[in-house]
Amino acid sequence: MFQLKVLCKEETEQVLKMNAVIENVEEVYRQKALGETEVFPLIFHEFQPGIADMDIKSGWLKGSGLFGLKLVSWFGDNIGKQLPPLIGTVMVFDDSTGAPLGILDGSYITGIRTGAAGALGAKYLANPDSQRLLLVGAGHVATFQIAATLTLFPNIKEVFIYDALDYKSAEIFAQTIKEGLLKTLNIPYNSDIQFTAVSDIQKATAQSDIIITVTPARTPLIHWEWVQPGTHFSCIGADMSGKEEIDSEILRHARIFVDDLEQCINVGEIELPIKNGIISREHIAGEIGEIITGKTAGRESKEQITVFDATGTALLDLIMAKLAFKEADKAGLGTRVNL
Amino acid sequence: MFQLKVLCKEETEQVLKMNAVIENVEEVYRQKALGETEVFPLIFHEFQPGIADMDIKSGWLKGSGLFGLKLVSWFGDNIGKQLPPLIGTVMVFDDSTGAPLGILDGSYITGIRTGAAGALGAKYLANPDSQRLLLVGAGHVATFQIAATLTLFPNIKEVFIYDALDYKSAEIFAQTIKEGLLKTLNIPYNSDIQFTAVSDIQKATAQSDIIITVTPARTPLIHWEWVQPGTHFSCIGADMSGKEEIDSEILRHARIFVDDLEQCINVGEIELPIKNGIISREHIAGEIGEIITGKTAGRESKEQITVFDATGTALLDLIMAKLAFKEADKAGLGTRVNL
Repeated sequence: MFQLKVLCKEETEQVLKMNAVIENVEEVYRQKALGETEVFPLIFHEFQPGIADMDIKSGWLKGSGLFGLKLVSWFGDNIGKQLPPLIGTVMVFDDSTGAPLGILDGSYITGIRTGAAGALGAKYLANPDSQRLLLVGAGHVATFQIAATLTLFPNIKEVFIYDALDYKSAEIFAQTIKEGLLKTLNIPYNSDIQFTAVSDIQKATAQSDIIITVTPARTPLIHWEWVQPGTHFSCIGADMSGKEEIDSEILRHARIFVDDLEQCINVGEIELPIKNGIISREHIAGEIGEIITGKTAGRESKEQITVFDATGTALLDLIMAKLAFKEADKAGLGTRVNL
Repeated sequence: MFQLKVLCKEETEQVLKMNAVIENVEEVYRQKALGETEVFPLIFHEFQPGIADMDIKSGWLKGSGLFGLKLVSWFGDNIGKQLPPLIGTVMVFDDSTGAPLGILDGSYITGIRTGAAGALGAKYLANPDSQRLLLVGAGHVATFQIAATLTLFPNIKEVFIYDALDYKSAEIFAQTIKEGLLKTLNIPYNSDIQFTAVSDIQKATAQSDIIITVTPARTPLIHWEWVQPGTHFSCIGADMSGKEEIDSEILRHARIFVDDLEQCINVGEIELPIKNGIISREHIAGEIGEIITGKTAGRESKEQITVFDATGTALLDLIMAKLAFKEADKAGLGTRVNL
């Protein structure tokens, strides 16, 4: 019999703080570049195309002594059932015995670690004096992207929010984001920052230093002609074959880093440009961990266009589980159950 | 927040009875043949070759409204740590919402459903008047194979036990199996049955009607020349690339059924004979569910040699989870935890 630690969503919200999350995501990228991790193949299944699917991401984080998985399901019809469409469950195991250690709700973990990932792409690739951030997509994940980016870029003065389907969503998002940042995420940010819903993505693109895309788009939302020199893109939304958020011409002109090369080639923003022959595999400068460990240079000039393509790996979820359990133990939170 | 049902190993032992297990495994094979199931690709990782590995099997059981996975780890060094080498964890999810339903220890489940699988191979392929059973391998799984086979074949008079590495193990097994069947599994069997440890596998092969192999062998243990007409083989041990338990000549002469065609071609007993060109893919008569549904004939003559190659799928674990939760609810067993 094993004693399993269990953390529900509300408990993961209490114990995961953005600064520590960013440090831990950075640590995973570092470990990955040093060959201390393994990402296992992704399992993906559509129950009903466009309506219900699930994926299983799994891997091994040697430096942290853990292996495990996250199963994420997306059931669009759940909204009418008072259930969240996205449901995630993370399970971690001890890599010295194979014994199960714990199980956690994976939805908050997914949001916050993905926010940290997008912002770390900007940390290592965007111009450090970046002042304007454009969020393409006004969903749940956007809050985390903004929270993490503001944590790492104290000079940001303005945040544009664009929603391709519904300007009203962007407006509501812009009105409520300050409260979300302060109350939910406890992010101390400069109160002078403007949060502005935009309907003209071309204009917003031209005005922004950092652009983070978090949509399920299958046709590019941003075109090469609109992009100013020096812009950085963190492309977060494309995590499934067939998705793409930005014009492949942008990628052709950009210095590109990824979180996991094989997975991005299969399901990331770079999938279609490579399949369509717009860029080659060799055009990818490396994985982001190679910048962190100093193996590869990130941005090479102030004018260069840079892209970070992040598809997310179980490694991030595993380190989040470790962090969450550590903090929950300190705070006396969580449940234990015999398995 | 979700309420998760949890069953530990001891609880799965209390609620899973062999008759119901056999019926449910048969039901899965039936559903699979009717196209009501999906088996997702297998994830396998060796932490240290021959010493520590893990696999994740997952799938969707439409007829039961469930999808999910089982993660099984095998850490050979656990014996010295007072831990079982094989540890399994099963997680099930609702296929109408994606919500997690429950988590169970997967080790007893794996043993008992694998026993049922081997015996069902015999039920649909062996001669019904079979009297002699040979177990090749005297490990934990062998008990379940015998228990399930005796449940389905009331005429069995003698059970031979062979251990390729250690005759002593087979002797101890033969001495303790009656107690295991009665006390642990509550199997009512004919008390006249002889359980005999054997050191001469050639002789035992020639005397047996049903042979079940449950070893991690990588070179065949049973040769074609030893096999009498009418023998049935259930090959259970080969579940990983490179494993094989019986001579490929036996397969060349046999009518072969599998539990999952793609998985068996990748990791089952038929893997190497197909890779080595001894048999072709077309030589496989079908999946066992096709016999159950009446689509394909099983054994075609009393003299025919038959083989059932079973690698195990998550579908079996999912239906075991459903059965175990149902029985645990009736008996007031199990824990509930908020996730």
